[in-house]
Amino acid sequence: MIYLDNAATTKPLEKALEAAEVYLKEEYFNPSALYLVGLKVKESEQNAKKTILSRFPLGYDLIFTSCGSEADNTAIFSFCKRGNAVTTLGEHSAVYECFNKLKISGYDARFAKLNKDGSVNEESLLSLVDENTVFVSIVHVNNETGAVNDIDRLAEVVKKKNPSVIFHSDGVQAFGKIPEKISSKIDLYSISAHKINGVKGIGALVKKKGVNISPLIYGGGQEDGLRSGTENVFGIISFSVATEECFKEIESNYLKVDRVKRKFKEIVSVDGVRFFAENSSPYILSFSAVGLRGEVIQHMMEDYGVIIGTGSACSSKKRHSRILFCSGFDNKTLDGALRVSFSRFTTEEEAIFAAEKLKECILRLKGVMRV
Amino acid sequence: MIYLDNAATTKPLEKALEAAEVYLKEEYFNPSALYLVGLKVKESEQNAKKTILSRFPLGYDLIFTSCGSEADNTAIFSFCKRGNAVTTLGEHSAVYECFNKLKISGYDARFAKLNKDGSVNEESLLSLVDENTVFVSIVHVNNETGAVNDIDRLAEVVKKKNPSVIFHSDGVQAFGKIPEKISSKIDLYSISAHKINGVKGIGALVKKKGVNISPLIYGGGQEDGLRSGTENVFGIISFSVATEECFKEIESNYLKVDRVKRKFKEIVSVDGVRFFAENSSPYILSFSAVGLRGEVIQHMMEDYGVIIGTGSACSSKKRHSRILFCSGFDNKTLDGALRVSFSRFTTEEEAIFAAEKLKECILRLKGVMRV
Repeated sequence: MIYLDNAATTKPLEKALEAAEVYLKEEYFNPSALYLVGLKVKESEQNAKKTILSRFPLGYDLIFTSCGSEADNTAIFSFCKRGNAVTTLGEHSAVYECFNKLKISGYDARFAKLNKDGSVNEESLLSLVDENTVFVSIVHVNNETGAVNDIDRLAEVVKKKNPSVIFHSDGVQAFGKIPEKISSKIDLYSISAHKINGVKGIGALVKKKGVNISPLIYGGGQEDGLRSGTENVFGIISFSVATEECFKEIESNYLKVDRVKRKFKEIVSVDGVRFFAENSSPYILSFSAVGLRGEVIQHMMEDYGVIIGTGSACSSKKRHSRILFCSGFDNKTLDGALRVSFSRFTTEEEAIFAAEKLKECILRLKGVMRV
Repeated sequence: MIYLDNAATTKPLEKALEAAEVYLKEEYFNPSALYLVGLKVKESEQNAKKTILSRFPLGYDLIFTSCGSEADNTAIFSFCKRGNAVTTLGEHSAVYECFNKLKISGYDARFAKLNKDGSVNEESLLSLVDENTVFVSIVHVNNETGAVNDIDRLAEVVKKKNPSVIFHSDGVQAFGKIPEKISSKIDLYSISAHKINGVKGIGALVKKKGVNISPLIYGGGQEDGLRSGTENVFGIISFSVATEECFKEIESNYLKVDRVKRKFKEIVSVDGVRFFAENSSPYILSFSAVGLRGEVIQHMMEDYGVIIGTGSACSSKKRHSRILFCSGFDNKTLDGALRVSFSRFTTEEEAIFAAEKLKECILRLKGVMRV
């Protein structure tokens, strides 16, 4: 099987599982317990936190959450209580639906328009930020098109307009993939383990020290009172190992995946295939077999042993991708939308095989349709 | 090592880990994906849900959460928006702190008093329920004293006073341990895997069909739109296997653990030891070595290789147990509070060894103090 839906989830690293397993089988103690074996677990948890934080500038802290969505929700609901808040039409549902919920409740939630590639339109964004804006959330790498927002620059221009804004970014598709460290203009940043070969069920909200968030989950006061619930130690340790591993050769991986993507793109560049987001993350290739049905191609590809996506798995129940729709594409283009997403383990051979098969599927369907 | 802090967390079952491991190593696909291997994962998740629901009366459903605390928070914040809500002073922090937060925000959150054993005082409870009460939450088994609330009867009397009340119970210490099924008078019930030899990071809010909760976490719309975030499939499968296993001989385990507890109690019944909650769950033995310090005894016991608790690990940072304090004990009794919590795997030999050592510690400390 060739798995090319790594933006939906990834295969956990053997190394991450092995390192974390001990916390299921032996060191299963509650990290809040005050006996020595419990304190030792707490220490491992703290070390995992340090490992992840070492990938951020000095002066950041984090709370572990159960997923990237929880991190996004925590950030948004901590601040969107007064004034107004601005996000984009190109956010992951975990941000978009929070803003939607706020808007329905009567809060002044604002949505900036997108460029054709799915990145935020800066002019639209800045026109929405005013002296009453308390919070801005802009996705780092779009999960459907792979479009990269230059969040550091956007945070700068937003804060120039209103220095009191808290700037959040959903970094789930960027963390461990895009080599550049974020700058300290970013106040809050959401990350998730299962997108970088850690396990499902663990994420984190990284925050600049001094930025005061409110809990989404109240209780025993874990995570400095900011996120209650017994810590998922297995998840936390796997997250830290997965982080270490994906940063080891992040630059060369970036270049390698970029070559894989180019090769793939070159092969499937047949008549009627339309690519979204030219300057996107190498990890995501988003395009449409215009006039065909994405899910039909997806199923044909699965018969060849190749797994590809049709859009965000998180919104699989909706017919069309909201993000592509908001980028201004017509129905025929939206129907044929496909997302191929690579990992640093995807080989060029796999990409070539998959792309050849994909081309074959597209040409076959086009032939059938011509009959 | 003899582990007697099973109310804080338990050792995951080998069988549960083995069954769930495949979802880390092979079937790691996103259950929201629309290709066959993804749909297969979704199916396993649905089967796990059915397995857990088979332990409840017909007409219940559940949403998976990341922990019992999240389940409690979801239940409470879904309903406590108008009118008033009633809970008890003997709740787990995951309920208590939500009510506290609501009270601070100006909501009419009410706390019923406790009996000496930590169970809720029915008279106090009923005096707080009125025609404007929308929600009542009462813990099934108290996590510190083990006191069992007869939630079915309490739900009945509460609903007799106000039939429109939504009745929630935190069942984290009861599920898989107390043999009686809950009745359909209970609208919402929180459970957690890691208290029944599943893994940390997964819980569930069981709900009567037709009871409409609101999401705590918005996003991709997983769990019928009621709890977003990529599902922790590994956790879910382990939860279902752990559930199956602990229900297999739930009645004989209950009796067995009861014998173990009695034996333990008999041995440590020395002068100056005061037991809380006479009619409590066999899984929890709560008592005080009056005049001594619980944490000193805990550390001495750890030197003997025996792990016991001093109170809820979830509130380990506070000096005294809130629940024991609210049950009306003096400082000398609170200082010496200890919690020994068994699992169905605790043997009589382990209990005897631990109890003998505990008696030794207590007598030694009392001797030292007498000098």
